[in-house]
Amino acid sequence: MRKAFLLFSAILFTPVAVNAQDEVVSAIFSNALNSDVAYENLRTLCETTEGRISGSPAAAAAVEFTRQIMKNMGLDSVYLQEMMVPNWRRGEPEIARILSSRYGSTDINVIALGLSVGTGNQGITAGVVELRGVEELEDLGREAVEGRIVFFNGPVDQTHYNTFTGYSGAVGQRFHGPALAADYGAAAALVRSVTTANHDYAHTGVTRFREEGRNIPAFAVSPVGADILSDMLEADPDLKLFVRNTSHRLPDVASFNVIGEIRGSVYPDQIITVGGHLDSWDNSPGAHDDGAGCMQSIDVLRIFNELGIIPRRTVRAVMFMDEEISQRGGRKYAAEADRKKEKHYFAIESDRGAFTPRGFSIDGSEEQLAAIQSLSPFFEPYGIYEIFSGGSGVDISFLRNYYDMALAGLVTDSQRYFDYHHAATDTFDKVNRREMQLGSAAMAALIYLLDHLDILEPADN
Amino acid sequence: MRKAFLLFSAILFTPVAVNAQDEVVSAIFSNALNSDVAYENLRTLCETTEGRISGSPAAAAAVEFTRQIMKNMGLDSVYLQEMMVPNWRRGEPEIARILSSRYGSTDINVIALGLSVGTGNQGITAGVVELRGVEELEDLGREAVEGRIVFFNGPVDQTHYNTFTGYSGAVGQRFHGPALAADYGAAAALVRSVTTANHDYAHTGVTRFREEGRNIPAFAVSPVGADILSDMLEADPDLKLFVRNTSHRLPDVASFNVIGEIRGSVYPDQIITVGGHLDSWDNSPGAHDDGAGCMQSIDVLRIFNELGIIPRRTVRAVMFMDEEISQRGGRKYAAEADRKKEKHYFAIESDRGAFTPRGFSIDGSEEQLAAIQSLSPFFEPYGIYEIFSGGSGVDISFLRNYYDMALAGLVTDSQRYFDYHHAATDTFDKVNRREMQLGSAAMAALIYLLDHLDILEPADN
Repeated sequence: MRKAFLLFSAILFTPVAVNAQDEVVSAIFSNALNSDVAYENLRTLCETTEGRISGSPAAAAAVEFTRQIMKNMGLDSVYLQEMMVPNWRRGEPEIARILSSRYGSTDINVIALGLSVGTGNQGITAGVVELRGVEELEDLGREAVEGRIVFFNGPVDQTHYNTFTGYSGAVGQRFHGPALAADYGAAAALVRSVTTANHDYAHTGVTRFREEGRNIPAFAVSPVGADILSDMLEADPDLKLFVRNTSHRLPDVASFNVIGEIRGSVYPDQIITVGGHLDSWDNSPGAHDDGAGCMQSIDVLRIFNELGIIPRRTVRAVMFMDEEISQRGGRKYAAEADRKKEKHYFAIESDRGAFTPRGFSIDGSEEQLAAIQSLSPFFEPYGIYEIFSGGSGVDISFLRNYYDMALAGLVTDSQRYFDYHHAATDTFDKVNRREMQLGSAAMAALIYLLDHLDILEPADN
Repeated sequence: MRKAFLLFSAILFTPVAVNAQDEVVSAIFSNALNSDVAYENLRTLCETTEGRISGSPAAAAAVEFTRQIMKNMGLDSVYLQEMMVPNWRRGEPEIARILSSRYGSTDINVIALGLSVGTGNQGITAGVVELRGVEELEDLGREAVEGRIVFFNGPVDQTHYNTFTGYSGAVGQRFHGPALAADYGAAAALVRSVTTANHDYAHTGVTRFREEGRNIPAFAVSPVGADILSDMLEADPDLKLFVRNTSHRLPDVASFNVIGEIRGSVYPDQIITVGGHLDSWDNSPGAHDDGAGCMQSIDVLRIFNELGIIPRRTVRAVMFMDEEISQRGGRKYAAEADRKKEKHYFAIESDRGAFTPRGFSIDGSEEQLAAIQSLSPFFEPYGIYEIFSGGSGVDISFLRNYYDMALAGLVTDSQRYFDYHHAATDTFDKVNRREMQLGSAAMAALIYLLDHLDILEPADN
């Protein structure tokens, strides 16, 4: 197939025909759908760098793996961008054991939240107070909470079509809950996993850590475990919970963003960024979150190379480090762009899972949004109907601190994402090759069109 | 949640407010997304009636299971519709063994195609001629084919966005290939599995059987097995292939369509049909194909009942038997409608997998298509943008023989479907609850709107 496409692209790029862009977009999608390069690279990433939380040896392996992939593609430039990253470690497998005079002893599945402090080796045993959300803390007051384990059991609202909306409504109890409970004197916090699945896996994620102020051990509990605990509490409000984790934070260590570039033929000083984040949580292979986004970003460059598309502007694939905890990679990338007085034209991130693409979420001015929406007819044949104003991606969002540029997020079918997000279920077998490749193609086509049609203004810092 | 919705529906249906339909559609989607009834019923169906090919005891169990589900829902009427169905049996596990003087002996994964005759106990050993499609038979001629095993190795074209298009382009070699090869004197036929996946599972499906004329043993080979055989043939064109299957056909047996109805409050004599097919292939639990479609169809009635939506017309959920081989269930349903001089208003089938709904494919007049397209604004908030002219579903399509009515197929995201279709991979764990429930909701909403707004003409026979 590769030969056929090279021939095709040679025909395409000699005379610029009417509807030439349509044909290029079609060639991009065909190339992507015939390729398994990114998919097989994702398989290797998942198999060899599982649990690549920032600061870990697995994360270092992922840096080297993606650097080598891009080196071997013969890009114009491949380099690392160094920064210090947090180095939080889970420690030993966590324990949460319900101790009930009525039911005896029952273990439920928990996992420490990112940045959680440990309980100490002896663990903590305390009574439990169940809440549906952080706002109930104030009603309860300090007396009801002090010395107890606060159990935030608010579920994701399943009625939203877009699961990110449901997630956003529930994630506050994970991020803010433990710190707020600490202010009321809680001994520890347990948070219902922020997931749309009804299974026995616990979903981790970062929780707020205060440099000054009290921090308490914080755990996510699986939905099944949360239901067990809630039911037992109803029957036996005096039950105790024993929790133990040995999470701890080590000194920051050096890590890297990994960057590969095709140099622009006309405006090499104008940068187009396409990226994902290379770190994952330590409890999973991070297939959808966000190994796939990284491999799709590299795949955009592969597609350009194979089709002989020479971009007019410099196109960079960026694997950002440390999205999950402190976003040091995204911050560094934007700060370096500013320091070097780079011009940036456009940036897109893929960090919503390698599901079938449905649209682009645009963070930019009304003019920028309208310009990108004008490209809609190119995308509708590929089931992409939704180009709307919204957030882009966490890593590229720091460019906004310096540039009045258009940022975009690849929007994918959201139904399955939170079944896997931050859990051991985020494995390679959950990724479908075609769905993932459609994401590569959608980003490549959008970058090609924006670059070719000059419909955005480049932004200086 | 159930109580809240009943309350909500009571408010909705007392005064007909502006945008009342919008609110009902929203209530339908919310109810569906909060429910796991159909999903759990599908789990049971897959666990207890795996391999429910028509005529099998498992198919009989599926008839009884779905009859009981609908009986227990308190529908106005639940009944069976009897017909004779084919009773083809696979026999012992198939064998395909490459015998090469160069490579020794290598087994590859094959599965007999539906309606294939057997090789006899001793099997068949013969040389192999590889083709890319049925049209190459004529070029080769009888001399090259006679006494050999014809290996149709045309792959699915992956470049089509809609995988059904790729499937349609390749399935001819499975359906027609073996019979045509028989006409050229072939000893047996091997067909590359018609799938988008690159794995080692063989995908079955029906092949053409002639009551008069020669029939030869016919097998699907896994994509991996097909590649092995093709590579070995290139290096050793004289290799032999040993194939064995003991497939055979027993006399037809009685089986049933299973039908449940909510009687219409205004036009009880006008029928709206929502259905899927209850039979599956014998090598899988048939989760996506089409256990899900059956459970979604029943779920439409559950949603109506829970929300207190009393349809103006009679709404029937129909589990069709024998879609995979002879479509006796679909034929019977349409013939009975004609015989009873029923009036039919609309029919929809779900048989493209329980993936996120993307649209409706309409088989009807231009006026009927336009009427249904006018409902588009109700569906766009749920990611459903595509209402187009096309085929509906195999089972309901026989209504077209008697009625000038609008038929529809629920169109879902097609990227994963042919990874599972007719293979052992079509298991319950491949179904996502939310995606499946969105399909129930989309069909319920379309039926509600068409029934409530009277925008189609009822068709007499």
